[in-house]
Amino acid sequence: MARSAKTSELNKLEQVAGNGLLHRRALLGRGVAFAGALGTGVGLSATKAAAEPLAEAPWGQEPGDPVPAYQTPSKFAKNVVRALSNPNFEPRTSQSRAPHQLLDGMITPNGVFFTIVHDGVPEIDPSVHQLLIHGLVKRPLIFSYEALLRHPMTSRIAFIECGGNSAGLFSPQPLQTDVQGLHGLVSCAEWTGVKLSTLLEETGIDPKAKWFIAEGADAAHVMRSVPLGKALDDAMIALYQNGEPLMPGNGYPMRLLLPGYEGNMNIKYVRRIKLLPEPAMSYWESQVYTEPLPNGKAYQFYFVNEVKSFITSPSPGRDLHEPGFYEISGLAYSGQGRISKVLVSADGGQSWGEAALQEPVLSMAFTRFRMPWQWNGGPAILQSRAWDEDGNAQPTRAEFVSARGELPSVPPLLAFENHHYNGVTSWAIDQKGQVKHAYA
Amino acid sequence: MARSAKTSELNKLEQVAGNGLLHRRALLGRGVAFAGALGTGVGLSATKAAAEPLAEAPWGQEPGDPVPAYQTPSKFAKNVVRALSNPNFEPRTSQSRAPHQLLDGMITPNGVFFTIVHDGVPEIDPSVHQLLIHGLVKRPLIFSYEALLRHPMTSRIAFIECGGNSAGLFSPQPLQTDVQGLHGLVSCAEWTGVKLSTLLEETGIDPKAKWFIAEGADAAHVMRSVPLGKALDDAMIALYQNGEPLMPGNGYPMRLLLPGYEGNMNIKYVRRIKLLPEPAMSYWESQVYTEPLPNGKAYQFYFVNEVKSFITSPSPGRDLHEPGFYEISGLAYSGQGRISKVLVSADGGQSWGEAALQEPVLSMAFTRFRMPWQWNGGPAILQSRAWDEDGNAQPTRAEFVSARGELPSVPPLLAFENHHYNGVTSWAIDQKGQVKHAYA
Repeated sequence: MARSAKTSELNKLEQVAGNGLLHRRALLGRGVAFAGALGTGVGLSATKAAAEPLAEAPWGQEPGDPVPAYQTPSKFAKNVVRALSNPNFEPRTSQSRAPHQLLDGMITPNGVFFTIVHDGVPEIDPSVHQLLIHGLVKRPLIFSYEALLRHPMTSRIAFIECGGNSAGLFSPQPLQTDVQGLHGLVSCAEWTGVKLSTLLEETGIDPKAKWFIAEGADAAHVMRSVPLGKALDDAMIALYQNGEPLMPGNGYPMRLLLPGYEGNMNIKYVRRIKLLPEPAMSYWESQVYTEPLPNGKAYQFYFVNEVKSFITSPSPGRDLHEPGFYEISGLAYSGQGRISKVLVSADGGQSWGEAALQEPVLSMAFTRFRMPWQWNGGPAILQSRAWDEDGNAQPTRAEFVSARGELPSVPPLLAFENHHYNGVTSWAIDQKGQVKHAYA
Repeated sequence: MARSAKTSELNKLEQVAGNGLLHRRALLGRGVAFAGALGTGVGLSATKAAAEPLAEAPWGQEPGDPVPAYQTPSKFAKNVVRALSNPNFEPRTSQSRAPHQLLDGMITPNGVFFTIVHDGVPEIDPSVHQLLIHGLVKRPLIFSYEALLRHPMTSRIAFIECGGNSAGLFSPQPLQTDVQGLHGLVSCAEWTGVKLSTLLEETGIDPKAKWFIAEGADAAHVMRSVPLGKALDDAMIALYQNGEPLMPGNGYPMRLLLPGYEGNMNIKYVRRIKLLPEPAMSYWESQVYTEPLPNGKAYQFYFVNEVKSFITSPSPGRDLHEPGFYEISGLAYSGQGRISKVLVSADGGQSWGEAALQEPVLSMAFTRFRMPWQWNGGPAILQSRAWDEDGNAQPTRAEFVSARGELPSVPPLLAFENHHYNGVTSWAIDQKGQVKHAYA
């Protein structure tokens, strides 16, 4: 295709914001203009006469491998794995971060769903494990795994996010890491289990009960206090994750699921729910998950993961190799309902265009957004901002820092203190197409 | 709880059909009646005084295991794997069946998503693999994996079902196997990729093109002809499965996805799409996937997976241990749209109650249905029937056999001829609670 023809095709594309952002209807690929936008360079799509018979690759000429009972990814996808904070398994917390820059869609597959464990991953025998519900109830009851399997189940697709996800954004200088390093402590799965309200129907509730504390059975015995209202609303004892029994790192055989509440409250390996008149002020909530603020006060018992988004592609490690069409793709989510809108900027926030939201858009689940973009080969700064149906807006980083401050002294990727960053993330692209984390 | 009190609680439950089927609102667990229905026997929920501190299990007293980069199920869930038809990898087709009797929800996780390969699982290098689109196009084009990654993507949750799934139901006698053995050749995932229509915008289409043939790059080189209308509607070149790159057994690095069309047409490892004026009459469609009928004619180019459902629990291998409350749970799906209704019977089809459908109910995706049931300890025959929004009804087995016949001479679980069984499945429960496959 001649350059002049290609240029005229490009002119037909409808720009909605500065620096090449196109109307989201370009995602439908309608019209010859789209072919023009895609270009014909190596690495994108190369015109070539069809030759038959087609040349044979080695895998077309010999039998493949046996089929395993449980399949795992191709050796060619060996980089699509979690990043480990404690690969030598020293006696401290182990974090593993989901590789969102290499994923697409709304589901995080079980193999790479993020985990945080404070004392390793326990191997729990479901025929021995029990869940006790006691305290301010009428009939304390013990539920075996088998007993729970007989109960009425419910399923929902929901994200879980560590309160410390994106903590690196508290740093005064932009950390040079990738999506996984900055935002890998969040994932989204379909969870199936028994509503906690169903179990509380069986135990009965003493009217004096206003909170409950949940405790895990592993050595860390994480405990968190939760308002009783959440138990009566959408809390679940989850048994299945994306269809199969929970992964060992995500709570097998059972975990508490509190949709939209920060990850550590979704107690893994849950062994008891105790109803209380007030919060228990456990070690975990009074020492670990309390947030000092610049004004000398502290956040305590903050639960909800605020509305947030980030772009997964392009992103650091997913550089651009030539000017032309790219899809900007990312994740948006809110602990307060459905995502209502995502705006994307290619000029560092000077102008914004509305991204397409992938259906189904579900409450407290990942929503994948997509935005067509024509990169002209010049510098660009990509950003996304999300809104939820509750009217909450994701703040810019400047707005966030103004309210919460920066935290230079804390190791940014491992800290407990710098929680709930939900401001904008910026990716700066230079003229070579290299993508770096930036503040803008 | 005294027996007399318990009986009076049971009487409050609202029965909607014979043999103990309850109104689906009982799934919400509202009211003390529910606690009564659940009983207090061992294995369900045992009343017990709360003792503190709780007794410690071994996993509460020692550190757990290291966190792996890619996590896999607990050793205690080692039976939640696929059943292999060719475990010694002899030179023939290998089927692996999803363990639906042990799964719940709508997503089939990637580890146990069913696969059929005719010559093993190829190890394909995505940096070498290419997709050619040629034939009756204006510009034949070759797309690399990297090129496809730059294209506009779309995601959808869709089932894929082998045309030979449920073939065992053609047998004149009910085969004594489980859900996995009868219905394991269907699974449902979130797929993300590039719409085929987008790629055809780039190649252009010769007006003489009415069909296309797709071919796989593995040694089996499966080829199927597809009407061009499907390419322009919802066909996709899928790159991601439940968020991560496709599994090797499911087409890595790319496969054709034809939502609602039988599995073999969703060509794995797709290496070319050739536009044609008419079907190619390839080996696979003229020899393998043509269906002889009792009247001497044959089905050919039948594509759509008809509306269907089956109960996954209770089911063979998931026996009942005592009378009382159980959730009847299963899967419904249709290649022609959304599921509109599922009815369940506990008396072999004499009476029916309407099951609850788990939201979101999506077109051409699994829909999980749930039905509360009070088993009185007597004989029962569980059945489900599904309807789709297109008005199609799942036939009874008698209706199905009347139209399609039985096939006693063909090895039922491995045959290619006995395709597209979508009639009712019946589970017979005896007074001991044992569940067996039955015709009723």
